[in-house]
This record gives sequence, structure tokens and C-alpha cells, in this order.
Amino acid sequence: MENKQILIDSLPQGKLQTSDYRLATVPVEQPGEGEVLVRTTAFAVTAGTRAGLQGSASYAGAPTSGIVMNGTGVGEVVASGDPAFAAGSRVMGPTGWQQYSVHKGAALTAIPAEHDPIHYLGPLGVNGLTAYFGLLDVGQPQAGQTVMVSAAAGSVGHLVGQMARIKQTRVVGVCGSDEKGALLVSRLGFDAAVNYKDAGFRDALKQATPDGVDVYFDNTGGMILGAALFRMNVGGRIACCGVVSQYDTDRPEPGPKGIPGLLINKRINMRGFLLFDYAQQYAQARREINGWLQSGELLSLTDEVHGLESAPEAFVNLLAGGNIGTRVVRLD
Amino acid sequence: MENKQILIDSLPQGKLQTSDYRLATVPVEQPGEGEVLVRTTAFAVTAGTRAGLQGSASYAGAPTSGIVMNGTGVGEVVASGDPAFAAGSRVMGPTGWQQYSVHKGAALTAIPAEHDPIHYLGPLGVNGLTAYFGLLDVGQPQAGQTVMVSAAAGSVGHLVGQMARIKQTRVVGVCGSDEKGALLVSRLGFDAAVNYKDAGFRDALKQATPDGVDVYFDNTGGMILGAALFRMNVGGRIACCGVVSQYDTDRPEPGPKGIPGLLINKRINMRGFLLFDYAQQYAQARREINGWLQSGELLSLTDEVHGLESAPEAFVNLLAGGNIGTRVVRLD
Repeated sequence: MENKQILIDSLPQGKLQTSDYRLATVPVEQPGEGEVLVRTTAFAVTAGTRAGLQGSASYAGAPTSGIVMNGTGVGEVVASGDPAFAAGSRVMGPTGWQQYSVHKGAALTAIPAEHDPIHYLGPLGVNGLTAYFGLLDVGQPQAGQTVMVSAAAGSVGHLVGQMARIKQTRVVGVCGSDEKGALLVSRLGFDAAVNYKDAGFRDALKQATPDGVDVYFDNTGGMILGAALFRMNVGGRIACCGVVSQYDTDRPEPGPKGIPGLLINKRINMRGFLLFDYAQQYAQARREINGWLQSGELLSLTDEVHGLESAPEAFVNLLAGGNIGTRVVRLD
Repeated sequence: MENKQILIDSLPQGKLQTSDYRLATVPVEQPGEGEVLVRTTAFAVTAGTRAGLQGSASYAGAPTSGIVMNGTGVGEVVASGDPAFAAGSRVMGPTGWQQYSVHKGAALTAIPAEHDPIHYLGPLGVNGLTAYFGLLDVGQPQAGQTVMVSAAAGSVGHLVGQMARIKQTRVVGVCGSDEKGALLVSRLGFDAAVNYKDAGFRDALKQATPDGVDVYFDNTGGMILGAALFRMNVGGRIACCGVVSQYDTDRPEPGPKGIPGLLINKRINMRGFLLFDYAQQYAQARREINGWLQSGELLSLTDEVHGLESAPEAFVNLLAGGNIGTRVVRLD
């Protein structure tokens, strides 16, 4: 049985290109004792994995060429050496961009029969949990406050904004096109959206945040973080989640002006977080998020492409801001 | 009766110069109902007041020319329309750079007879309280951890380092000369000192912090903040107190690289603070700090000059890194 894979052929120089990847075909591995063979049905393409191609500054560790591109996927258990995972059951795990993969059972999350597996690439997966803990634990929004989120139409951002709305705050999204902004307001209940590519971005942000910003959920860093600092209220919180503005380059910009000066004047608390520090609380979070999905308060936007070979182009396009919601590559 | 004053003659362009100030002589004002006339016996010259000459980004508000240069002083009550302050008693307050000043009683702090007034410009005043709350409340150092402080020989820094030592941490100071560094280690009990002007600064900092940095008390921002970010441990705290590297200029640098990237990877909590948010806790803090002064655990270094006219030169020299401890201008 064959396993098609997409390998990182070379570490990107400057902007990522589809030619940095290549397709390979290898035999399917068989699972040993305690291991599980998974057939991927879909995987998510997320901006954060671009950081893993940059070097040792990333939490993902030093990158390497010639290995399967990493990513979270969902799939079906084909064969199992771990009694906790029966053949035919559904799982989420670090499948990478390939048709089949073998994992230790501990690396997999079982998907309950009543849950839609595709939600484990969105609101019940890494993106949704990241939105949940970053907003609620780091951001600590209070009803009536203003929450600002960047990359607001992205896989994490569109969930952050909706969770902030559920928590009865005023929600302002920053995104890269007027179409995305209109969708955030009309479909997801954001109070306002601002296009960072507009020349009048800073003025528009000011108008969209008449009472300032109490919580800024930062997915981008860079210029948008710089603009947010000027809108923050005294005692505000900045949840540092990602630096998408700096991923697709080999020469990251310096940090924004106003750090640390504005942090002091406004007594701002700026805190970076990584999802895996919250592993003990995933189950509780999934229960609450699933409740919002069931009640219809939370919508999961996905942006699907089909076929393993479409992944590199989908990723390059994602880094250029082409997606709305979670970009998913379906293999089924 | 005459009152000599030092006025801001013009807002500085680029580096501050003594010619940005001028001496004026005006009649002494008399205190009205609820007011107090104070004869200044000494005032502190501190880097933070340079920010007040930069523009609206400062918490001190927009600067103006033709006004008395601001600063905290101590002095003696000459005449009083407030029964809480008897003539002859000693007070601390925002005297500015002048011989006499009139204040509402609420703006003054009475100095108990058993305290040395000069300590109210140092460990029992703004500097000491800033060190205390920034280190202990924002930094939350735990015994055995490593605390790094910049501008370590300065008015706040030399107290931060000693308080960190009292809290049984490893203390590493960053300062601008080898002489200052030697003094921090030999007289104040720092574990190590590193000169940021050395070409090998980053390597020296690495060697001085073999277990990384858990708490960074940042008085400088800029390049030293950038270097600290690379030494921070996972879960570390950065207490943002001042930006002395950026005060003496009209063109502040961008923020350091690594923000927000390193904040995320290391889950760093970076928080700005201003002393006056802790006003309700000053009395308790002064009791603890005074205990350390009495036991000899905490030394207050002052660096004194004499005469009102010497203040501008003392300030210009301070911004160039010329001081050790708290720079005080004595008028008595």
C-alpha cells in the first residue's frame, strides 16, 4: 500500500514558494506495539507552521528539509497496536501532509462519535482551544469592554471574535480585505472590522474603538501591534498568540515603537502563551466550545481545498492572506 | 524674599543641553488656606523626567517651555495654611528645581522625625518605592531564581538589585562602565555585573546568567531589552519601569526584535507599571524598606552636587550615564 507525502524540499529563502515542497511516495508503515496507523481524511493548513521553517527561534524546534511537512490532521484508524484506539475509530493527531501516518497512542486524541471530526481542525482543535485560552485566560475580557483581534478572518481570529461577542464585549476585527471585514460583521457578529491595508487604517481603527481597547488578541505582531498599542486603555491586556506578519520572510522586522514606553504609561500587561500549557484544561474547554457550536452561537468557517497535491499552493496563498476561517485540505 | 528657579527655556532638540535651561528669580509666593510654603533642602535629578520633555507620549503630559523643571524634593515647611503641616516640619513633594514652592497639603508627604529626609529622595522615596513594587509585585521573584536589572547603578536599579538579593535570588546588573559594575558586586552584593558598552556584551550576559533570567527589571528598553529577551526563561516576567535608552533623543528607536515572537515562545509576561497605582501601599512598603536600611541590608548610594545652578549640568551628565545611585542636588 502506498503513502503519498508532501516533503519540505528546501528551507524557504524569503517568501515561501510551492517549489519549496515536493511529492514523494513511500510504502505505508505498519504500527508496532502501542502504535496506531491512521488514514488522513483532512488536515489543517495554518500560518503558525510557517514559523517552523524559519530556524531555532521557533518553539517548533529547528527545521529540517527532506521531512514530511507538519500539520494537524484528522483521520480514521486503519490498524492499531494500542487497545485504546479501535480500527475504524476517528482521531486527531500530528499527521502532517500525508495519506497515512503511524503514531504512539499518546499522540492522538480520540474524537467522540457525536462530534464532527472536521471541528477538530477548527473550534474543537488547536485553533479553537488557542482562541479560547488566549482570549479568556490571558485576555480576561469583561462584559462591556472592547476586544480587538488581528488576522480576524483567520482560523484563530474568527473564533476569538465570536467568543468575545459571546462574552458580551464590543468586538473589532482587523483583517486584510473589505470582503473579509464585511463577512465578520454580517455573519459572525463582529461590531466592526478594519482593513489594515487601507491607507486610513489608523484612523479607521480609532473610529472603530471609540472607548479604546481593553484586550488585544495579537495574531500578527508588526505594524498592527504598533497601532493597537496606541489604542490600548490603561490596564489593558495583550495576548500574544502569533506573529503572522513576520512568518513569511527570512528577515523579521524590529518590534513596534512604543515598546516598552507605552506599556509603562498605560500599565499594559503583554503576555505570550502557547496552547500546550493548557493541556489539562482541554476537555473542559471542548465541552464549553461544543455547547456554543450546538446552540449556534459559534460558527466555524472552513475554507476547503481537495487533494494532497493542493496543499502547498493552499499554504502559500494562506500566508498571502487568501483564506477565510480555517483552511482545510480534504483527502477523502 | 526671592525664589531662584530653573526653567525649561526650550524643549530639547535631540540631546538635552544645559542651554535648554535658564535661571530665573521671582518673588516667593505666600501660601493660602490649605497651602504650604516649602523651602527646598534637596531635590533628586532622575532620568524619568527627561521623558516629560518629549511630548504627549509621556505619562507626565505634554511638555511646556517656560515652566519650572519638575522633580521631587525634600524641604522644610516655612509657612503653612494647612494644620497638618507645622512650620519647621519636614516634607517630601514635587518641589521642582527651585528654592521655594507652594503646595496643597495633599501633594506633600510628611517625613517622620526618625527618618533621614535624604532617604525620601532614595530608598524611601519614588526610587525606592518604584524598585519595591516593580520587583516584588510585577516581577514576583522566587528564591533561587535569577533577576536581571538594567541601569543597575542608577537610582532605581541599585535598589532593585539589593532588594532582589534580600529576596535570595541571583542578581545580575547591567550598567555602562566597569567601575560601576565593580561597585555593584563589591559594595552592594550583586552576583555579577555586565557592561553593555562592551563589544562582548551579549556573551558576557550569557555567562553571567547560566540558568537564564526569570525576572528582568527593565529601566532602559532598547538594545538591552532585546538582549534580555534572548536570556529569559520560560514563564519569565519583565517589569517595564523605564526607557532611559530612549529618553535623550527626539527620535526613539523601534522596539527590539523578538517582540512578540519570543514573548510567545517563552510565555513571557511583560508588564508596564507606574508607581502611583500603588499609593495605598506606600506606608507598608516604607516600613519594610526602612527595616532593611536599619539592619544594613540595604545601602542607599547617593551622588550629591551642591547648588541650584549645578542641576542642569548634573542632569545632562546623568543622561549620559555619569551617576552612581541617586543623584541629588543639595540646596542647604
